[in-house]
Amino acid sequence: MLSTIKIVLVGTTHPGNIGAVARAMKNMTMTNLCLVSPKIFPSADATSRASGADDVLSRAIVCSTLEEAVDDCELVIGASARCRTISWPDITPRDCAEKILIHEPGRKVAIVFGRENSGLMNNELDLCHFLLRIPCNSEYSSLNLAAAVQIVCYELFVATGVKSEIQIGDKGQQPLATAGQIESFYAHLAEALVDIGFMHPDKSKTIMRRLRRIYNRIQLDTKELDILRGILRMSQGNKRKN
Amino acid sequence: MLSTIKIVLVGTTHPGNIGAVARAMKNMTMTNLCLVSPKIFPSADATSRASGADDVLSRAIVCSTLEEAVDDCELVIGASARCRTISWPDITPRDCAEKILIHEPGRKVAIVFGRENSGLMNNELDLCHFLLRIPCNSEYSSLNLAAAVQIVCYELFVATGVKSEIQIGDKGQQPLATAGQIESFYAHLAEALVDIGFMHPDKSKTIMRRLRRIYNRIQLDTKELDILRGILRMSQGNKRKN
Repeated sequence: MLSTIKIVLVGTTHPGNIGAVARAMKNMTMTNLCLVSPKIFPSADATSRASGADDVLSRAIVCSTLEEAVDDCELVIGASARCRTISWPDITPRDCAEKILIHEPGRKVAIVFGRENSGLMNNELDLCHFLLRIPCNSEYSSLNLAAAVQIVCYELFVATGVKSEIQIGDKGQQPLATAGQIESFYAHLAEALVDIGFMHPDKSKTIMRRLRRIYNRIQLDTKELDILRGILRMSQGNKRKN
Repeated sequence: MLSTIKIVLVGTTHPGNIGAVARAMKNMTMTNLCLVSPKIFPSADATSRASGADDVLSRAIVCSTLEEAVDDCELVIGASARCRTISWPDITPRDCAEKILIHEPGRKVAIVFGRENSGLMNNELDLCHFLLRIPCNSEYSSLNLAAAVQIVCYELFVATGVKSEIQIGDKGQQPLATAGQIESFYAHLAEALVDIGFMHPDKSKTIMRRLRRIYNRIQLDTKELDILRGILRMSQGNKRKN
Protein backbone atom coordinates (compact mmCIF):
# COMPACT_ATOMS: atom_id res chain seq x y z
CA MET A 1 0.00 0.00 0.00
CA LEU A 2 2.93 2.32 0.67
CA SER A 3 4.87 0.96 -2.32
CA THR A 4 4.21 4.00 -4.54
CA ILE A 5 5.76 6.38 -2.01
CA LYS A 6 9.44 7.17 -1.95
CA ILE A 7 11.49 8.95 0.65
CA VAL A 8 14.05 11.31 -0.89
CA LEU A 9 16.98 12.61 1.17
CA VAL A 10 18.77 15.62 -0.29
CA GLY A 11 22.44 16.28 0.43
CA THR A 12 22.64 14.24 3.62
CA THR A 13 25.90 14.96 5.45
CA HIS A 14 26.07 12.15 8.01
CA PRO A 15 25.89 8.62 6.59
CA GLY A 16 24.67 7.38 10.00
CA ASN A 17 21.49 9.35 9.42
CA ILE A 18 20.93 7.58 6.09
CA GLY A 19 21.12 4.24 7.90
CA ALA A 20 18.77 5.42 10.64
CA VAL A 21 16.31 6.60 7.97
CA ALA A 22 16.40 3.17 6.29
CA ARG A 23 15.56 1.56 9.63
CA ALA A 24 12.78 4.07 10.35
CA MET A 25 11.28 3.38 6.91
CA LYS A 26 11.43 -0.40 7.14
CA ASN A 27 9.87 -0.30 10.61
CA MET A 28 6.86 1.22 8.85
CA THR A 29 6.97 -1.16 5.81
CA MET A 30 8.43 1.46 3.47
CA THR A 31 11.32 0.49 1.21
CA ASN A 32 11.82 3.08 -1.57
CA LEU A 33 14.74 5.30 -0.63
CA CYS A 34 16.32 7.80 -2.98
CA LEU A 35 19.46 9.76 -2.13
CA VAL A 36 20.28 13.01 -3.88
CA SER A 37 24.01 13.77 -3.75
CA PRO A 38 24.71 12.21 -0.34
CA LYS A 39 28.05 13.36 1.05
CA ILE A 40 29.21 9.82 1.88
CA PHE A 41 27.44 6.71 0.60
CA PRO A 42 27.70 3.77 0.85
CA SER A 43 29.26 3.75 4.28
CA ALA A 44 29.84 1.38 7.18
CA ASP A 45 28.17 3.96 9.45
CA ALA A 46 25.01 3.86 7.37
CA THR A 47 24.92 0.06 7.38
CA SER A 48 25.51 -0.11 11.12
CA ARG A 49 22.71 2.35 11.95
CA ALA A 50 20.37 0.63 9.48
CA SER A 51 20.49 -2.30 11.88
CA GLY A 52 18.85 -4.96 9.74
CA ALA A 53 17.35 -2.59 7.19
CA ASP A 54 20.40 -2.88 4.95
CA ASP A 55 18.18 -4.26 2.18
CA VAL A 56 16.59 -0.77 2.00
CA LEU A 57 20.07 0.75 1.77
CA SER A 58 21.30 -1.63 -0.90
CA ARG A 59 18.26 -0.90 -3.06
CA ALA A 60 18.52 2.88 -2.52
CA ILE A 61 18.75 4.90 -5.73
CA VAL A 62 21.37 7.66 -5.87
CA CYS A 63 20.66 10.72 -8.04
CA SER A 64 22.60 13.89 -8.63
CA THR A 65 19.64 16.30 -8.61
CA LEU A 66 16.23 16.49 -7.00
CA GLU A 67 14.66 17.04 -10.44
CA GLU A 68 15.91 13.63 -11.46
CA ALA A 69 14.71 12.04 -8.22
CA VAL A 70 11.12 13.30 -8.53
CA ASP A 71 10.79 13.18 -12.30
CA ASP A 72 8.28 10.31 -12.30
CA CYS A 73 6.25 11.56 -9.31
CA GLU A 74 2.74 12.99 -9.42
CA LEU A 75 2.90 14.52 -5.96
CA VAL A 76 6.02 15.99 -4.37
CA ILE A 77 5.96 16.95 -0.71
CA GLY A 78 8.88 18.79 0.88
CA ALA A 79 9.60 18.53 4.60
CA SER A 80 11.06 21.70 5.99
CA ALA A 81 11.16 23.61 9.25
CA ARG A 82 12.80 26.72 7.86
CA CYS A 83 10.99 29.99 7.64
CA ARG A 84 10.31 31.15 4.12
CA THR A 85 9.48 34.58 2.90
CA ILE A 86 7.16 33.21 0.26
CA SER A 87 4.45 31.18 1.94
CA TRP A 88 3.99 27.64 0.71
CA PRO A 89 0.81 25.66 1.31
CA ASP A 90 1.77 23.56 4.33
CA ILE A 91 0.37 20.37 5.78
CA THR A 92 0.97 18.24 8.87
CA PRO A 93 2.23 14.64 8.67
CA ARG A 94 -1.28 13.43 9.51
CA ASP A 95 -2.92 15.50 6.77
CA CYS A 96 -0.18 14.37 4.45
CA ALA A 97 -0.84 10.69 5.17
CA GLU A 98 -4.55 11.17 4.75
CA LYS A 99 -4.06 13.09 1.52
CA ILE A 100 -1.82 10.41 0.05
CA LEU A 101 -3.63 7.29 1.22
CA ILE A 102 -7.26 8.25 1.36
CA HIS A 103 -7.71 10.97 -1.24
CA GLU A 104 -5.07 9.98 -3.78
CA PRO A 105 -4.30 6.28 -3.34
CA GLY A 106 -1.90 4.67 -5.79
CA ARG A 107 -0.32 7.95 -6.93
CA LYS A 108 3.44 8.16 -7.27
CA VAL A 109 4.56 10.32 -4.37
CA ALA A 110 7.91 11.66 -3.19
CA ILE A 111 8.44 12.99 0.32
CA VAL A 112 11.60 15.04 0.33
CA PHE A 113 13.84 15.78 3.32
CA GLY A 114 16.60 18.39 3.17
CA ARG A 115 20.09 18.70 4.57
CA GLU A 116 20.67 18.27 8.31
CA ASN A 117 21.74 21.86 8.81
CA SER A 118 20.13 23.85 6.07
CA GLY A 119 17.09 21.90 4.88
CA LEU A 120 15.90 22.36 1.31
CA MET A 121 17.00 25.23 -0.91
CA ASN A 122 14.40 27.47 -2.49
CA ASN A 123 15.01 26.00 -5.94
CA GLU A 124 14.34 22.56 -4.46
CA LEU A 125 11.18 23.75 -2.74
CA ASP A 126 10.07 25.05 -6.13
CA LEU A 127 9.66 21.42 -7.16
CA CYS A 128 7.34 20.67 -4.22
CA HIS A 129 3.56 20.85 -4.32
CA PHE A 130 3.24 21.01 -0.56
CA LEU A 131 5.40 21.79 2.39
CA LEU A 132 5.18 19.30 5.23
CA ARG A 133 5.67 20.75 8.69
CA ILE A 134 5.95 18.53 11.74
CA PRO A 135 4.21 20.07 14.78
CA CYS A 136 6.88 20.72 17.39
CA ASN A 137 8.41 23.00 20.02
CA SER A 138 8.61 26.44 18.44
CA GLU A 139 11.72 27.20 20.46
CA TYR A 140 13.54 24.01 19.53
CA SER A 141 12.21 22.89 16.24
CA SER A 142 15.08 21.11 14.54
CA LEU A 143 14.35 17.39 14.55
CA ASN A 144 16.99 14.82 13.78
CA LEU A 145 16.62 13.74 10.14
CA ALA A 146 15.73 10.12 10.93
CA ALA A 147 13.33 11.26 13.68
CA ALA A 148 11.48 13.42 11.16
CA VAL A 149 11.31 10.56 8.66
CA GLN A 150 10.16 8.25 11.46
CA ILE A 151 7.20 10.47 12.30
CA VAL A 152 6.14 10.84 8.68
CA CYS A 153 6.44 7.09 7.93
CA TYR A 154 4.61 6.27 11.16
CA GLU A 155 1.69 8.50 10.15
CA LEU A 156 1.63 6.87 6.72
CA PHE A 157 1.63 3.39 8.26
CA VAL A 158 -1.12 4.30 10.74
CA ALA A 159 -3.16 5.74 7.86
CA THR A 160 -2.97 2.45 5.96
CA GLY A 161 -4.96 0.95 8.83
CA VAL A 162 -7.52 3.72 8.55
CA LYS A 163 -7.58 3.44 4.78
CA SER A 164 -8.53 -0.22 4.83
CA GLU A 165 -11.72 0.87 6.59
CA ILE A 166 -12.59 3.61 4.11
CA GLN A 167 -12.89 2.91 0.40
CA ILE A 168 -13.23 6.01 -1.67
CA GLY A 169 -14.05 5.61 -5.36
CA ASP A 170 -11.65 7.24 -7.76
CA LYS A 171 -12.73 6.10 -11.23
CA GLY A 172 -12.77 8.13 -14.42
CA GLN A 173 -10.23 10.65 -13.17
CA GLN A 174 -7.50 11.93 -15.49
CA PRO A 175 -3.99 10.98 -14.44
CA LEU A 176 -2.18 13.78 -12.67
CA ALA A 177 0.67 15.41 -14.53
CA THR A 178 4.09 14.12 -13.49
CA ALA A 179 6.80 16.40 -12.09
CA GLY A 180 8.63 16.12 -15.42
CA GLN A 181 5.55 17.27 -17.36
CA ILE A 182 5.03 20.14 -14.93
CA GLU A 183 8.65 21.22 -15.38
CA SER A 184 8.18 21.33 -19.15
CA PHE A 185 5.11 23.46 -18.57
CA TYR A 186 7.11 25.92 -16.44
CA ALA A 187 9.81 26.11 -19.09
CA HIS A 188 7.14 26.80 -21.71
CA LEU A 189 5.43 29.35 -19.44
CA ALA A 190 8.70 31.22 -18.85
CA GLU A 191 9.37 31.28 -22.59
CA ALA A 192 5.88 32.57 -23.33
CA LEU A 193 6.09 35.28 -20.66
CA VAL A 194 9.31 36.53 -22.20
CA ASP A 195 7.76 36.32 -25.67
CA ILE A 196 4.73 38.42 -24.73
CA GLY A 197 6.97 40.95 -23.02
CA PHE A 198 5.69 40.29 -19.50
CA MET A 199 9.04 39.27 -18.13
CA HIS A 200 12.70 39.90 -18.86
CA PRO A 201 14.70 36.67 -19.02
CA ASP A 202 17.16 38.11 -16.45
CA LYS A 203 14.51 39.05 -13.93
CA SER A 204 12.43 35.93 -14.16
CA LYS A 205 13.38 34.25 -10.88
CA THR A 206 10.96 35.85 -8.45
CA ILE A 207 8.04 35.91 -10.82
CA MET A 208 8.55 32.27 -11.81
CA ARG A 209 8.75 31.29 -8.15
CA ARG A 210 5.44 33.00 -7.51
CA LEU A 211 3.87 31.31 -10.50
CA ARG A 212 5.19 27.90 -9.41
CA ARG A 213 3.62 28.50 -6.06
CA ILE A 214 0.29 29.08 -7.78
CA TYR A 215 0.38 26.12 -10.17
CA ASN A 216 2.01 23.67 -7.75
CA ARG A 217 -1.03 24.11 -5.52
CA ILE A 218 -3.42 22.98 -8.22
CA GLN A 219 -2.04 19.54 -8.99
CA LEU A 220 -2.93 19.75 -12.64
CA ASP A 221 -4.09 16.66 -14.48
CA THR A 222 -2.75 15.89 -17.93
CA LYS A 223 -5.86 17.19 -19.73
CA GLU A 224 -5.65 20.50 -17.88
CA LEU A 225 -1.98 20.80 -18.66
CA ASP A 226 -2.81 20.36 -22.37
CA ILE A 227 -5.26 23.26 -22.16
CA LEU A 228 -2.78 25.57 -20.44
CA ARG A 229 -0.06 24.71 -22.94
CA GLY A 230 -2.50 25.37 -25.76
CA ILE A 231 -3.09 28.84 -24.34
CA LEU A 232 0.66 29.44 -24.10
CA ARG A 233 1.14 28.38 -27.71
CA MET A 234 -1.56 30.76 -28.90
CA SER A 235 -0.16 33.71 -26.95
CA GLN A 236 3.27 33.01 -28.42
CA GLY A 237 1.79 32.69 -31.88
CA ASN A 238 0.47 36.22 -31.69
CA LYS A 239 3.82 37.55 -30.62
CA ARG A 240 5.62 35.72 -33.38
CA LYS A 241 3.23 37.11 -35.95
CA ASN A 242 4.26 40.63 -34.84
CA MET B 1 0.65 20.79 29.63
CA LEU B 2 3.12 17.94 29.26
CA SER B 3 5.00 18.89 32.43
CA THR B 4 3.47 16.12 34.54
CA ILE B 5 4.70 13.41 32.17
CA LYS B 6 8.12 11.84 32.47
CA ILE B 7 9.99 9.61 30.10
CA VAL B 8 11.80 6.77 31.86
CA LEU B 9 14.58 4.84 30.12
CA VAL B 10 15.51 1.52 31.72
CA GLY B 11 19.01 0.06 31.37
CA THR B 12 19.99 1.96 28.25
CA THR B 13 23.20 0.54 26.76
CA HIS B 14 24.24 3.21 24.25
CA PRO B 15 24.68 6.72 25.69
CA GLY B 16 24.13 8.17 22.19
CA ASN B 17 20.56 6.92 22.43
CA ILE B 18 20.05 8.81 25.68
CA GLY B 19 21.15 12.03 23.96
CA ALA B 20 18.88 11.35 20.97
CA VAL B 21 15.97 10.75 23.38
CA ALA B 22 16.63 14.12 25.07
CA ARG B 23 16.50 15.83 21.68
CA ALA B 24 13.32 13.96 20.65
CA MET B 25 11.67 15.01 23.93
CA LYS B 26 12.66 18.65 23.75
CA ASN B 27 11.48 18.85 20.13
CA MET B 28 8.05 18.06 21.56
CA THR B 29 8.34 20.38 24.61
CA MET B 30 8.97 17.56 27.07
CA THR B 31 11.74 17.91 29.62
CA ASN B 32 11.38 15.31 32.40
CA LEU B 33 13.80 12.50 31.77
CA CYS B 34 14.56 9.72 34.22
CA LEU B 35 17.28 7.11 33.69
CA VAL B 36 17.18 3.78 35.48
CA SER B 37 20.66 2.23 35.70
CA PRO B 38 22.05 3.56 32.43
CA LYS B 39 25.18 1.68 31.38
CA ILE B 40 27.17 4.88 30.70
CA PHE B 41 26.00 8.32 31.85
CA PRO B 42 26.89 11.15 31.65
CA SER B 43 28.79 10.78 28.39
CA ALA B 44 30.17 12.95 25.58
CA ASP B 45 28.22 10.76 23.14
CA ALA B 46 24.95 11.56 24.87
CA THR B 47 25.68 15.30 24.90
CA SER B 48 26.68 15.28 21.25
CA ARG B 49 23.54 13.46 20.10
CA ALA B 50 21.38 15.69 22.33
CA SER B 51 22.36 18.51 19.97
CA GLY B 52 21.13 21.48 21.99
CA ALA B 53 18.89 19.53 24.35
CA ASP B 54 21.68 19.16 26.89
CA ASP B 55 19.53 21.02 29.42
CA VAL B 56 17.23 17.98 29.40
CA LEU B 57 20.24 15.73 29.98
CA SER B 58 21.67 17.83 32.78
CA ARG B 59 18.34 17.80 34.61
CA ALA B 60 17.84 14.06 34.07
CA ILE B 61 17.30 12.07 37.25
CA VAL B 62 19.20 8.83 37.63
CA CYS B 63 17.64 6.00 39.67
CA SER B 64 18.76 2.49 40.39
CA THR B 65 15.39 0.78 40.03
CA LEU B 66 12.18 1.30 38.08
CA GLU B 67 10.19 1.17 41.35
CA GLU B 68 12.05 4.24 42.51
CA ALA B 69 11.58 6.02 39.17
CA VAL B 70 7.80 5.59 39.09
CA ASP B 71 7.16 5.88 42.81
CA ASP B 72 5.35 9.24 42.53
CA CYS B 73 3.37 8.38 39.39
CA GLU B 74 -0.37 7.78 39.14
CA LEU B 75 -0.23 6.15 35.75
CA VAL B 76 2.63 4.00 34.44
CA ILE B 77 2.73 3.02 30.79
CA GLY B 78 5.34 0.58 29.49
CA ALA B 79 6.48 0.70 25.88
CA SER B 80 7.41 -2.65 24.49
CA ALA B 81 7.45 -4.45 21.17
CA ARG B 82 8.23 -7.88 22.56
CA CYS B 83 5.72 -10.65 22.42
CA ARG B 84 4.49 -11.64 25.84
CA THR B 85 2.94 -14.85 26.92
CA ILE B 86 0.76 -12.97 29.37
CA SER B 87 -1.38 -10.50 27.49
CA TRP B 88 -1.27 -6.97 28.86
CA PRO B 89 -3.92 -4.37 28.11
CA ASP B 90 -2.22 -2.58 25.24
CA ILE B 91 -2.76 0.84 23.73
CA THR B 92 -1.38 2.74 20.74
CA PRO B 93 0.60 5.99 21.11
CA ARG B 94 -2.46 7.92 19.92
CA ASP B 95 -4.77 6.26 22.46
CA CYS B 96 -2.08 6.82 25.07
CA ALA B 97 -1.86 10.54 24.33
CA GLU B 98 -5.62 10.86 24.38
CA LYS B 99 -5.87 8.91 27.61
CA ILE B 100 -3.27 11.04 29.33
CA LEU B 101 -4.24 14.46 28.04
CA ILE B 102 -7.96 14.24 27.60
CA HIS B 103 -9.18 11.67 30.10
CA GLU B 104 -6.64 12.17 32.85
CA PRO B 105 -5.13 15.64 32.47
CA GLY B 106 -2.72 16.75 35.19
CA ARG B 107 -2.02 13.23 36.46
CA LYS B 108 1.56 12.26 37.13
CA VAL B 109 2.46 9.86 34.37
CA ALA B 110 5.54 7.80 33.51
CA ILE B 111 6.11 6.34 30.08
CA VAL B 112 8.74 3.66 30.37
CA PHE B 113 11.05 2.41 27.61
CA GLY B 114 13.15 -0.74 28.01
CA ARG B 115 16.63 -1.84 26.97
CA GLU B 116 17.69 -1.58 23.31
CA ASN B 117 17.99 -5.34 22.90
CA SER B 118 15.68 -6.89 25.42
CA GLY B 119 13.04 -4.32 26.30
CA LEU B 120 11.40 -4.45 29.73
CA MET B 121 11.61 -7.48 32.03
CA ASN B 122 8.43 -9.08 33.27
CA ASN B 123 8.98 -7.75 36.80
CA GLU B 124 9.26 -4.24 35.32
CA LEU B 125 6.11 -4.73 33.27
CA ASP B 126 4.37 -5.69 36.51
CA LEU B 127 4.70 -2.04 37.51
CA CYS B 128 2.91 -0.84 34.39
CA HIS B 129 -0.81 -0.20 34.10
CA PHE B 130 -0.79 -0.35 30.34
CA LEU B 131 1.45 -1.62 27.61
CA LEU B 132 2.08 0.84 24.79
CA ARG B 133 2.60 -0.71 21.39
CA ILE B 134 3.70 1.36 18.39
CA PRO B 135 2.00 0.20 15.17
CA CYS B 136 4.72 -1.09 12.84
CA ASN B 137 5.97 -3.70 10.38
CA SER B 138 5.24 -7.07 11.98
CA GLU B 139 8.30 -8.52 10.27
CA TYR B 140 10.69 -5.78 11.38
CA SER B 141 9.31 -4.34 14.54
CA SER B 142 12.32 -3.20 16.53
CA LEU B 143 12.40 0.58 16.51
CA ASN B 144 15.43 2.54 17.56
CA LEU B 145 14.93 3.69 21.16
CA ALA B 146 14.94 7.41 20.32
CA ALA B 147 12.66 6.80 17.32
CA ALA B 148 10.12 5.12 19.61
CA VAL B 149 10.33 7.97 22.12
CA GLN B 150 9.99 10.45 19.25
CA ILE B 151 6.72 8.91 18.07
CA VAL B 152 5.23 8.83 21.56
CA CYS B 153 6.26 12.42 22.39
CA TYR B 154 5.00 13.59 18.99
CA GLU B 155 1.58 12.05 19.66
CA LEU B 156 1.51 13.71 23.08
CA PHE B 157 2.43 17.07 21.60
CA VAL B 158 -0.14 16.79 18.82
CA ALA B 159 -2.75 15.89 21.42
CA THR B 160 -2.09 19.06 23.37
CA GLY B 161 -3.52 20.77 20.32
CA VAL B 162 -0.85 23.35 20.69
CA LYS B 163 -0.12 24.60 17.28
CA SER B 164 3.54 25.21 16.90
CA GLU B 165 4.13 28.91 16.90
CA ILE B 166 6.57 28.88 14.06
CA GLN B 167 4.73 30.74 11.41
CA ILE B 168 6.23 29.30 8.30
CA GLY B 169 5.78 31.62 5.43
CA ASP B 170 3.06 33.48 7.20
CA LYS B 171 5.07 36.61 6.80
CA GLY B 172 3.72 38.93 4.21
CA GLN B 173 0.76 36.73 3.50
CA GLN B 174 -1.77 38.40 1.26
CA PRO B 175 -5.50 38.38 1.81
CA LEU B 176 -7.33 35.84 -0.34
CA ALA B 177 -9.08 37.22 -3.40
CA THR B 178 -12.81 37.74 -2.97
CA ALA B 179 -15.37 35.96 -5.13
CA GLY B 180 -16.00 39.25 -6.92
CA GLN B 181 -12.33 39.69 -7.74
CA ILE B 182 -12.16 36.13 -9.01
CA GLU B 183 -15.18 36.72 -11.26
CA SER B 184 -13.49 39.79 -12.75
CA PHE B 185 -10.44 37.64 -13.38
CA TYR B 186 -12.53 35.05 -15.24
CA ALA B 187 -14.15 37.77 -17.35
CA HIS B 188 -10.72 39.16 -18.15
CA LEU B 189 -9.37 35.66 -18.91
CA ALA B 190 -12.25 34.93 -21.30
CA GLU B 191 -11.66 38.23 -23.07
CA ALA B 192 -7.92 37.58 -23.39
CA LEU B 193 -8.45 34.04 -24.70
CA VAL B 194 -10.70 35.40 -27.40
CA ASP B 195 -8.17 38.15 -28.15
CA ILE B 196 -5.26 35.77 -28.63
CA GLY B 197 -7.42 33.52 -30.80
CA PHE B 198 -7.50 30.56 -28.42
CA MET B 199 -11.25 30.58 -28.07
CA HIS B 200 -14.30 31.64 -30.05
CA PRO B 201 -16.72 33.74 -27.99
CA ASP B 202 -19.57 31.36 -28.96
CA LYS B 203 -17.78 28.23 -27.89
CA SER B 204 -16.33 29.48 -24.65
CA LYS B 205 -18.58 27.67 -22.19
CA THR B 206 -16.80 24.33 -21.89
CA ILE B 207 -13.31 25.74 -21.92
CA MET B 208 -14.15 28.40 -19.33
CA ARG B 209 -15.72 25.76 -17.12
CA ARG B 210 -12.50 23.74 -17.28
CA LEU B 211 -10.42 26.81 -16.49
CA ARG B 212 -12.64 27.72 -13.56
CA ARG B 213 -12.19 24.20 -12.30
CA ILE B 214 -8.43 24.74 -12.38
CA TYR B 215 -8.25 28.18 -10.78
CA ASN B 216 -11.01 27.62 -8.24
CA ARG B 217 -8.90 24.88 -6.72
CA ILE B 218 -6.09 27.28 -5.81
CA GLN B 219 -7.66 29.98 -3.68
CA LEU B 220 -5.64 32.78 -5.20
CA ASP B 221 -4.52 35.64 -3.01
CA THR B 222 -4.80 39.24 -4.21
CA LYS B 223 -1.11 39.55 -5.11
CA GLU B 224 -1.26 36.40 -7.21
CA LEU B 225 -4.38 37.64 -8.93
CA ASP B 226 -2.53 40.85 -9.83
CA ILE B 227 0.25 38.83 -11.44
CA LEU B 228 -2.15 36.70 -13.48
CA ARG B 229 -4.05 39.78 -14.64
CA GLY B 230 -0.76 41.44 -15.57
CA ILE B 231 0.02 38.45 -17.78
CA LEU B 232 -3.42 38.67 -19.38
CA ARG B 233 -2.94 42.39 -20.13
CA MET B 234 0.42 41.75 -21.78
CA SER B 235 -0.93 38.93 -23.96
CA GLN B 236 -3.80 41.22 -25.02
CA GLY B 237 -1.39 44.06 -25.70
CA ASN B 238 0.40 41.99 -28.28
CA LYS B 239 -2.82 41.14 -30.00
CA ARG B 240 -3.96 44.73 -30.06
CA LYS B 241 -0.70 45.83 -31.61
CA ASN B 242 -1.45 43.49 -34.54
